[in-house]
Amino acid sequence: MVRIEHIGIAVENLEDSIALYEQLLNTPCYKTETVEAEKVATAFFRVGESKIELLQGSDADSVITKFVAKKGQGIHHIAYEVENIQAEMKRLTALGFELLNTEPKKGADNKLVCFLHPKTSGGVLVELCQEIRP
Amino acid sequence: MVRIEHIGIAVENLEDSIALYEQLLNTPCYKTETVEAEKVATAFFRVGESKIELLQGSDADSVITKFVAKKGQGIHHIAYEVENIQAEMKRLTALGFELLNTEPKKGADNKLVCFLHPKTSGGVLVELCQEIRP
Repeated sequence: MVRIEHIGIAVENLEDSIALYEQLLNTPCYKTETVEAEKVATAFFRVGESKIELLQGSDADSVITKFVAKKGQGIHHIAYEVENIQAEMKRLTALGFELLNTEPKKGADNKLVCFLHPKTSGGVLVELCQEIRP
Repeated sequence: MVRIEHIGIAVENLEDSIALYEQLLNTPCYKTETVEAEKVATAFFRVGESKIELLQGSDADSVITKFVAKKGQGIHHIAYEVENIQAEMKRLTALGFELLNTEPKKGADNKLVCFLHPKTSGGVLVELCQEIRP
């Protein structure tokens, strides 16, 4: 893994949480983005070479809405930047990690992404992501 | 906040989890350390400018043992590196964030640390840390 690309944090109300994180991190939110396919509204903050990604579910069916209803607001996943997502998916599958998608899919922030099932990654939802190159 | 210093992940068995994370991250554990005051055994991995810190409680009273018993293995806290921990504690207190310790305390990995209560930081246990300078 090249670096921690972002930490995904599930929140109830994106607007309130943006205000809170601007105070906590002492840096402005630099982007908001809605990912329709995932039913989430997102907001990004830079911290060194990494980002904090706030996630609010956009309807009751969103996995983020369900996560917050069940567990409350909190850390949802860790995303690692990789050089080659296909190669990394192959490497991890061979080691016994279970992938939640067999092909990379389009995520927020111009990334190809793949998630690992928490049951094979020590209880942590892990996202691999690779920048989409022009 | 200067960067994500580490992500703390609570585990049941440090030895098993070190083996898992060496596979997941494709990098060796570079240090283990016991912090008696916190009743934890820790293991560190480098990912870019950040670290992954695995935490196993060293007895039944450890907050990590209790966390794992209640919630299962998973992400426990996010630690941010700061330039001046005293100044940052003062800034955040003035903004209404609740600190769990009023003076910085000695943490793992040669750091002065202070935790923020999750109830004022959006459900996330936040650690501030500053390198102890000689």
